[in-house]
Amino acid sequence: MSDYGVDTVLRIRLERRPGQLARVAATVAELGALIGDVTTIHIGEGATIRDLTVETVDDAQAQRVVEALRRVSGVEVQQVRDRVFDAHRGGKIHSKSRVELRQLGDLRTIYTPGVARVALAIHRDPMRAWELTTLGRSVGIFTNGTRVLGLGNIGVLASLPVMEGKAVLYDQLAGLSATPVLVDTDDVDEFITTVERLAHSFGAIHLEDIRTPDCFRVESELQRRLAKPVLHDDQHGTATAALAAVINACRRTGRALRTSRVGQIGLGAAGNAIAKLLMRYGVGSMMVNDPLPAAESALTALGATATDVPRLMQEAAIVIATTGQAGLICRDAVRRGQVILALTNPRPEIDPAEALDAGAAFAADGRSVNNALAFPGLFRGALEVRSRAITPEMQIAAAEAIADATDEGAIVPSVLDPRVHAAVTSAVADCAKRLGLAGTARP
Amino acid sequence: MSDYGVDTVLRIRLERRPGQLARVAATVAELGALIGDVTTIHIGEGATIRDLTVETVDDAQAQRVVEALRRVSGVEVQQVRDRVFDAHRGGKIHSKSRVELRQLGDLRTIYTPGVARVALAIHRDPMRAWELTTLGRSVGIFTNGTRVLGLGNIGVLASLPVMEGKAVLYDQLAGLSATPVLVDTDDVDEFITTVERLAHSFGAIHLEDIRTPDCFRVESELQRRLAKPVLHDDQHGTATAALAAVINACRRTGRALRTSRVGQIGLGAAGNAIAKLLMRYGVGSMMVNDPLPAAESALTALGATATDVPRLMQEAAIVIATTGQAGLICRDAVRRGQVILALTNPRPEIDPAEALDAGAAFAADGRSVNNALAFPGLFRGALEVRSRAITPEMQIAAAEAIADATDEGAIVPSVLDPRVHAAVTSAVADCAKRLGLAGTARP
Repeated sequence: MSDYGVDTVLRIRLERRPGQLARVAATVAELGALIGDVTTIHIGEGATIRDLTVETVDDAQAQRVVEALRRVSGVEVQQVRDRVFDAHRGGKIHSKSRVELRQLGDLRTIYTPGVARVALAIHRDPMRAWELTTLGRSVGIFTNGTRVLGLGNIGVLASLPVMEGKAVLYDQLAGLSATPVLVDTDDVDEFITTVERLAHSFGAIHLEDIRTPDCFRVESELQRRLAKPVLHDDQHGTATAALAAVINACRRTGRALRTSRVGQIGLGAAGNAIAKLLMRYGVGSMMVNDPLPAAESALTALGATATDVPRLMQEAAIVIATTGQAGLICRDAVRRGQVILALTNPRPEIDPAEALDAGAAFAADGRSVNNALAFPGLFRGALEVRSRAITPEMQIAAAEAIADATDEGAIVPSVLDPRVHAAVTSAVADCAKRLGLAGTARP
Repeated sequence: MSDYGVDTVLRIRLERRPGQLARVAATVAELGALIGDVTTIHIGEGATIRDLTVETVDDAQAQRVVEALRRVSGVEVQQVRDRVFDAHRGGKIHSKSRVELRQLGDLRTIYTPGVARVALAIHRDPMRAWELTTLGRSVGIFTNGTRVLGLGNIGVLASLPVMEGKAVLYDQLAGLSATPVLVDTDDVDEFITTVERLAHSFGAIHLEDIRTPDCFRVESELQRRLAKPVLHDDQHGTATAALAAVINACRRTGRALRTSRVGQIGLGAAGNAIAKLLMRYGVGSMMVNDPLPAAESALTALGATATDVPRLMQEAAIVIATTGQAGLICRDAVRRGQVILALTNPRPEIDPAEALDAGAAFAADGRSVNNALAFPGLFRGALEVRSRAITPEMQIAAAEAIADATDEGAIVPSVLDPRVHAAVTSAVADCAKRLGLAGTARP
């Protein structure tokens, strides 16, 4: 199944006579591309101008479509725009003022001389920073660019559009003020020291796109040093969303999750965190598999059983895969009644339709099981009650809230459903209070 | 002259009979405080509720007023609010999304999978980050909190409201996206290394509230290492605004600045930069004074003459003071026809009215000569043309633009006049082009 991920908008001028659009459509089809929206921009004397959205698998295919259309007589390609690049132009975030400057008095209130009294109040009592600055709503998104999406170590600058995207999600889904901070070093200790030195700038620390195994030490060390929420989203955002999906899958199929045998294939940042969170949730029989013995022993030390993939597929009632290997699970390996979450993006270990066809009771891929279901509410909830940490218990509360907010028939809710993020926020905040963590954060 | 800098809003309930407000007003007056707005909130059966703004010199005086009012019979103080603290509550900035998430397609465009193509495009050609991220409009405001306003080394956390205030000005005056970055170290080399390591996060680097002499090395070293605008505002923002004021003062008094003898008293961050910029502008005869011999020799090495304050006051036609010492210049020292800019805030070296009374042709203090006239347009202009630096020539172009945008009778324009910032922006951008600096910045 091809993924038509590239939307190109072509502004074309067509002579105004029958068959012109048909010829264009045929040309696009011949090259294996799809047509999306067709919008009429202008109708003139003998010609029409239209914006035609062409969906292709990659840039090269889009380029071939453009060249082919340029050779069709009566068709003029006036402009080629890429929808994705258009949306990113000029950047996706802006640090906006929450106050308006109308008169000089406003300046004296929010800047000098007024601000000096506010600065002194915080100097005397640092906890007042929660109230008198943006810290109570702010998240720093820190990365070193060593494992950006599935693209690998492409460096911090190239990771910036991804970090800005994360900041967009924080603002739009949870009303938090998030800022990308690109730390240009591959050295783990330098990275940790830098984040620690900057920690007063933000109410909470979101770690993003840091390679394995560096991400484990970065996170645990910063959690130890800082009395504010620190979370590596690629691990725990994903694990929280996956747990929600597994809870729902069990509900749909009438399974008891805690007493089922669960298999986790792939123990990178996400897989490791999923396995740990499931065990923390109460899963008694956890099987794991990874090519790296060290990755497996991190889990067997906690009580999991390491095994090979065929055996895991044979024995686990619930299988979760986060291997990065499209098509790893062949249909013959699927057992009747199995629950399968194949989470590698954009191409899963097994296509859900194929898994169901092979007898699985339930199957899903990573498109719906998105960490954006979890991280906005995890951070918002922790910040609201000034919790010094986001603990596994708080992740479990979040996962249950996500599962409960899911509509009939779906495995998880839509990321764009605002009720989910409100539910996660209050579940996380309540959990922090129960744990005695409310009010323990330092600004 | 006292500065009534503290505005307190008291919500008071008064019995509804004649003389009640008079008694309140008399009580406020007895304690030497002023009354600002009086707003009726509610008129009830036998009582009225009003918000009364009381202006005092400090918090203690406000507290005395509240206590005295609580003793007035028939008056109930229901609530005491501080206007400045109210304005800062919850923080003054928010990192907002520039795109809206309405449907899942938006998510696929601005986040995964679409964003991967944008990340790769920047990985292949880093210069595309100017176009495809927020860098072209973004400024990082870096401080170590070692010299915050006139408050000294109060630490980074307490400096945050000041940095947020700066970010408000960037957004409101120049449409730039600025972010406070608090670097918790007093060590100069650690600070430099940290800013360098974070430099890809922002299009330009604004340095703020770093103590002297550390600020000099921090700035020059970062300018050497980074191919993007780096400027210490306390030095050059102030110097640019001061040069504009001096240009205007000379115009008003018919003086030729370049051939006048100019005296600079106080060679801290601001004074050092003012003296240097004036010499760069073409002032041939520059006298300087500072208690620190090293501060003086930094200027004499460039051709200035070091001297004592009495001699400087005696010989300089134009005197600029940035000493931090209120009342340093006594009225007897003022010469007839002299131009005097006493820039120490909030209390100047000599009150402008007193200087004029003593025979000065022109006098001003630091309230109007504000670096906020300069820094928004300096950074915006440099970013617009992708200049790798903000040079003294660009500061001079900015100062001339500020001087030209000044209304008859004023020494400089109002900071809130949007025309100033537009004029500075285009003067700076044009100057960068003339210098061949346009397009030389690296993201």
